[in-house]
Amino acid sequence: MISFEVLHKDRASRARVGVLKTPRGTVQTPVFMPVGTAGTVKATPHEFLAQLETQLILANTYHLYLRPGSDVVRNLGGLHDFISWDLPILTDSGGYQVFSHRELNKISDEGVEFRSHLDGSRHFFSPERSIQVQEALGADIIMAFDDCTPYPVNHAEARASMERSMDWAVRCRAVWEGSRQALFGIVQGSVYLDLRLESLSRILQMDFPGLAFGGFSVGEPKPVMHDLLSQLSHQLPGELPHYLMGVGTPVDLVLAVQNGFDMFDCVLPTRNARNGTLFTWQGLIRIKNACYREDSGPLDGSCGCFVCQKYSRAYLRHLYISGEILSSILNTFHNLYFYMELMSEIRAAIGRSSLGALTKQLTDAYGELGGGSPAGNH
Amino acid sequence: MISFEVLHKDRASRARVGVLKTPRGTVQTPVFMPVGTAGTVKATPHEFLAQLETQLILANTYHLYLRPGSDVVRNLGGLHDFISWDLPILTDSGGYQVFSHRELNKISDEGVEFRSHLDGSRHFFSPERSIQVQEALGADIIMAFDDCTPYPVNHAEARASMERSMDWAVRCRAVWEGSRQALFGIVQGSVYLDLRLESLSRILQMDFPGLAFGGFSVGEPKPVMHDLLSQLSHQLPGELPHYLMGVGTPVDLVLAVQNGFDMFDCVLPTRNARNGTLFTWQGLIRIKNACYREDSGPLDGSCGCFVCQKYSRAYLRHLYISGEILSSILNTFHNLYFYMELMSEIRAAIGRSSLGALTKQLTDAYGELGGGSPAGNH
Repeated sequence: MISFEVLHKDRASRARVGVLKTPRGTVQTPVFMPVGTAGTVKATPHEFLAQLETQLILANTYHLYLRPGSDVVRNLGGLHDFISWDLPILTDSGGYQVFSHRELNKISDEGVEFRSHLDGSRHFFSPERSIQVQEALGADIIMAFDDCTPYPVNHAEARASMERSMDWAVRCRAVWEGSRQALFGIVQGSVYLDLRLESLSRILQMDFPGLAFGGFSVGEPKPVMHDLLSQLSHQLPGELPHYLMGVGTPVDLVLAVQNGFDMFDCVLPTRNARNGTLFTWQGLIRIKNACYREDSGPLDGSCGCFVCQKYSRAYLRHLYISGEILSSILNTFHNLYFYMELMSEIRAAIGRSSLGALTKQLTDAYGELGGGSPAGNH
Repeated sequence: MISFEVLHKDRASRARVGVLKTPRGTVQTPVFMPVGTAGTVKATPHEFLAQLETQLILANTYHLYLRPGSDVVRNLGGLHDFISWDLPILTDSGGYQVFSHRELNKISDEGVEFRSHLDGSRHFFSPERSIQVQEALGADIIMAFDDCTPYPVNHAEARASMERSMDWAVRCRAVWEGSRQALFGIVQGSVYLDLRLESLSRILQMDFPGLAFGGFSVGEPKPVMHDLLSQLSHQLPGELPHYLMGVGTPVDLVLAVQNGFDMFDCVLPTRNARNGTLFTWQGLIRIKNACYREDSGPLDGSCGCFVCQKYSRAYLRHLYISGEILSSILNTFHNLYFYMELMSEIRAAIGRSSLGALTKQLTDAYGELGGGSPAGNH
């Protein structure tokens, strides 16, 4: 299955460098997982993922369940064989997607009846069904099926949603076979510290091999998230990997690392790339801007990626304005390179206790709140 | 500028193997040029073009003139610097595009006033202006501005159109600076052998360093094109490179090579790729077909490209059905690999006088007429 070991702890914060060992490879943490929704990190050939030294990718159970179907994937040897990727994969539970159209779906204690966004067909996910589907997909790390609490909610609603997630976590834990795949439990509780702490305690009692936090970066103000992560940091168990789901901007990541979080996924680098919004060490660049029309300089002079080595801002702008597929390819490579380099810098900074300087560099470039989209980063 | 040398002639046909030397590299002929319309071969990172051993790419003057503008490209050091491609490039004259909306544009002996397909703005191309724009772009091979005769036309219309092309060829020849870039003259005359022969004779008198044939693959029946190429083959000058513009399918290529043609460009492999239509040595595959849903085999078991080595038909179908950008990337790589391997096989077959067997293999797979789209291959 998996094992996790902390190699080094930061002196000035709760940050740590660790290794997560899986049957398909060892992952250095803190780690950022590119999102490969439907079995491909959008606009990215596997060859480029390898060049980026991608350690772990995330795939979406909901999307793969609907298309090509988890049975098809299983018949073709599982997700690794199907997409021809032999490094570790994590699948989410499908919960985030089936709850994102809460008003359209029928939610009960049993599970969620939902409509396919592809053809309107009706489907049912329960904790048991989600685990079954994730077992068919065969990722190395799988996630408990949870009720993704929306924002805003009042305390009573947040408690009810959290209670449901806890009941479902018990059911996921019960049917999980536990041999090949590592199942992570998910802490919910919205923005309420007491609920988060209670949820954390209950999840820990269930003895999962990994610990995740859901329901962040769903529209709550940035300072609320950062404060809550800071308060939770003292209660983290330490010996488990801590996965903060769906987060976030470069500043979010470096702050969360300082609060003890080890694993992250977010669509920001890949989605922003396709929208022409590019991460640099000097801040965001919107490549469509007219000022780049004849700009022969690189996107980011301090970036070592082949896009910055080889192409000008003028060419990248031209490709974007022209709607060329190469625009998405090059922009995605650059943004993922930025995120990968950021995580590498974070791991190095923990080693030399200089996360503070890195944080200042990022907040100087991106602002105290870290910029980026405040919601919908999943 | 350029030089062309025939290294080997086929015994059974007029096919020949040659080398076209340009300041930016030597091109082995017969050669297929991938189409890089707006400064990118669609969906193809340059790294992949290099893997494909691409020798020469085509870019469209019309598209680059309108966006980003030939002045912008010139200010950024020319097309090679702008797109970061240091191997040979050929630009067309813009004629094909401005004539493709003949009814919307004002055509006179002076030139063509046309509307931008992007914003409706009015522009004027004359032979002199086309050469000026192509000089600003800075490709290694540039093309005369010609009147692309539509199909069908009667003999009188075809003559008038050909006469205009010949007048314009004289004007292009007169303003061409001739030092850095090689200008090819273009033979027109539609499907009329007498007009084609007259046009050929007039173009040869103008002493261009390369000879092109336009106005094929514009809707005329395949046998008409193949017969005409066969009749023209005996009149080709031999010592110049012979470029058959906008052609064609695999069968078109092998037949044209046997008639003495050396250079080809066509959007078929790249456009078909994006439409999920894939070339194999067994014929065309439409990857969306349901029969590939759980097909774990490669696209083409006899193909050595990384797509066929690594991915299943089921995965390629899934990517296509899901509208993933990776579908266009992988399909384009495979189709271009097929075309590049086809040209390599053609060159080898000329060396051992076995073009007949290769032709039979292709007509067995694609039919006598070669399949593909009968028109609009440019």
